[in-house]
Amino acid sequence: MAAEIVNPRTESSDAGTGNTGQEGSGEPLDSIDPAFALHRGGKMAVQSTVPIRDKDDLSLAYTPGVARVCTAIAEQPELVNDYTWKSSVVAVVTDGTAVLGLGDIGPEASLPVMEGKAILFKQFGGVDAVPIALACTDVDEIIETVVRLAPSFGGVNLEDISAPRCFEIEKRLQERLDIPVFHDDQHGTAVVTLAALRNAARLTGRGLGDLRAVISGAGAAGVAIAKMLLEAGLGDVAVTDRKGIVSADREDLTPVKRELAELTNKAGLSGSLEDALAGADVFIGVSGGTVPEAAVASMAEGAFVFAMANPNPEVHPDVAHKYAAVVATGRSDYPNQINNVLAFPGIFAGALQVRASRITEGMKLAAAEALASVVGDDLAADYVIPSPFDERVAPAVTAAVAAAARAEGVARR
Amino acid sequence: MAAEIVNPRTESSDAGTGNTGQEGSGEPLDSIDPAFALHRGGKMAVQSTVPIRDKDDLSLAYTPGVARVCTAIAEQPELVNDYTWKSSVVAVVTDGTAVLGLGDIGPEASLPVMEGKAILFKQFGGVDAVPIALACTDVDEIIETVVRLAPSFGGVNLEDISAPRCFEIEKRLQERLDIPVFHDDQHGTAVVTLAALRNAARLTGRGLGDLRAVISGAGAAGVAIAKMLLEAGLGDVAVTDRKGIVSADREDLTPVKRELAELTNKAGLSGSLEDALAGADVFIGVSGGTVPEAAVASMAEGAFVFAMANPNPEVHPDVAHKYAAVVATGRSDYPNQINNVLAFPGIFAGALQVRASRITEGMKLAAAEALASVVGDDLAADYVIPSPFDERVAPAVTAAVAAAARAEGVARR
Repeated sequence: MAAEIVNPRTESSDAGTGNTGQEGSGEPLDSIDPAFALHRGGKMAVQSTVPIRDKDDLSLAYTPGVARVCTAIAEQPELVNDYTWKSSVVAVVTDGTAVLGLGDIGPEASLPVMEGKAILFKQFGGVDAVPIALACTDVDEIIETVVRLAPSFGGVNLEDISAPRCFEIEKRLQERLDIPVFHDDQHGTAVVTLAALRNAARLTGRGLGDLRAVISGAGAAGVAIAKMLLEAGLGDVAVTDRKGIVSADREDLTPVKRELAELTNKAGLSGSLEDALAGADVFIGVSGGTVPEAAVASMAEGAFVFAMANPNPEVHPDVAHKYAAVVATGRSDYPNQINNVLAFPGIFAGALQVRASRITEGMKLAAAEALASVVGDDLAADYVIPSPFDERVAPAVTAAVAAAARAEGVARR
Repeated sequence: MAAEIVNPRTESSDAGTGNTGQEGSGEPLDSIDPAFALHRGGKMAVQSTVPIRDKDDLSLAYTPGVARVCTAIAEQPELVNDYTWKSSVVAVVTDGTAVLGLGDIGPEASLPVMEGKAILFKQFGGVDAVPIALACTDVDEIIETVVRLAPSFGGVNLEDISAPRCFEIEKRLQERLDIPVFHDDQHGTAVVTLAALRNAARLTGRGLGDLRAVISGAGAAGVAIAKMLLEAGLGDVAVTDRKGIVSADREDLTPVKRELAELTNKAGLSGSLEDALAGADVFIGVSGGTVPEAAVASMAEGAFVFAMANPNPEVHPDVAHKYAAVVATGRSDYPNQINNVLAFPGIFAGALQVRASRITEGMKLAAAEALASVVGDDLAADYVIPSPFDERVAPAVTAAVAAAARAEGVARR
């Protein structure tokens, strides 16, 4: 008779119940757009991994048996990682201020994205994840809240929190917590971009040191990509925002962009995005907006164009192909999709596997190398990055990240 | 190749991996105590309820499709209940200060109980639940934290928070939130106790108004039981704490006990638990400690003894049976087990089904009546309350709570 046990989700998907209000408005959406039909009732559930068939099961999984496990953890705190799901569950935390390209839509409206993230963690990394959309946007309040939640989780994935707040929140949280804190909009994007760039360089017989890259966009992704490309050894990187090239001579820079101006632009360029692109080897678009064809034409011979804005790439792939040796986008309907799902599931799976206390730069670089290596001998201009559905990806990234965590001394098993 | 995707839980249960520290200490526990073997890796997981087989699935469950759902919720906030799991997921929130009989063992050590609670929610009520063990014990901090989490959840189950803090936290949270906030240690216990008492009265042909009850224990459960029994129409209720009967003439009462003294003890009794029991019709033990056999013998003819302390009932059932017409305990190895799992899954399933804004007294009373009614014509001295595994229980409680929510005007569908 288990079927008679009422599942609120099932109920809420039952158009036949005489319910009112939101249901009434929900039905039409479901019939006109398959995305709504798929989302009805949400995209995730919790399941028990132990049997509860009879009172003997209950006496082990709950009282009195559970009390012995609680007592052991109280005496030996690290046992919480062995005898609860803590060491395999990640909090996907947002404040809803920078959701996809939609901007500040608030915590409730951000939940479908956080649920999507959670099921991608599970599907691609075997990592349990729980959406936590917060009703506060103050930096200190977000940090305090996550610190108070931390005992229940093995890691924190920050998501869709607007820049520059996201930088301070991640930095201060990682200083306070001994579990990994990872802002995917920054580092996930940077890891996948670097993997594609490594393969593009290999394909065209160039070293990363030979390349000068221009990044359009100085938000979370742009800043993280710039730092990671420099760590990986790129020759030079220039970042542009709405006002042009981020350069030391500008008076209008935020602290984050001022740091960026010091790290990047060795060539000392100033001016517009078009000025930066003249003779550049790599274009990386994480800005939206569009790049004039003439500017693409002005890039160096055999350039790489990664136009990652969704849904409209900064340079249309057909245009990019006229001038570039390798073209990548953020879209699934063109080759070479730069998709974070190639990185975050394996990065957290590897970090959790060895109970890493943080995710270091070395672990991210190792993730990018492992991701790039999956392409192997099949490397081609339209195949510099694997498909999100290539099942070799997550195990390769997981193993590389776990090994790097051990090598860097942040692993605890 | 999905099997190759690394699941941190699977890994952490693999005694073969050359891991160190907690693993080393975990193995022996697993072999000597099946509760530890069962708990290894935790008792729960997250699952996707939608397919992600290819890029078409991904484009609906994640970008770009998810953006349309987010936009719709931003424009029409109540849609969050239709298109995310919010309306079917409960946060099981604790600060680890009053865990089972173990006391203040902290958030990490409380997690096995919270996970157990979560899987009971799922197993018996079809309700998704997430353990949230907080690293703070300050009342204001706990309230602020839960308010910030609330956008992600359809209800809040407070668990194992010490009295009297639990009373203020529940009251103030329910004032701030428009989703149900329910402290199970109080109300779950009270609902199941009232159900058993209703059937005991029916069995012995007495009305609740004819009964004088004595409750040993003025903590979360004792206070809630006293209030609910009075609402249900019991003749009189006296509550005792370590210092004896809670009565208006005492100088040492906390605000909560002072309120209790005004509500209870119409007879104006003062003195010890033994004084209160002389001639009483009902004993309800939620205190631990033991009651002398002579005190049980001094109760009225055909008394009811509900000795609910775990693992050691205040009166051993064999002793109680010498004097009482009906005997109940908190233990699964005796008849008439007073177990909260009979109440909280159905109470939340019913409240979530109609999107109730709170769980009212009327909804709790309806839950108790529905639970009592499941026993039906099989009523007997050793069967005044159903088994936790009686699959009629959750649907009956769910339906009664949903109907009561509509009747009381707190339902939103």
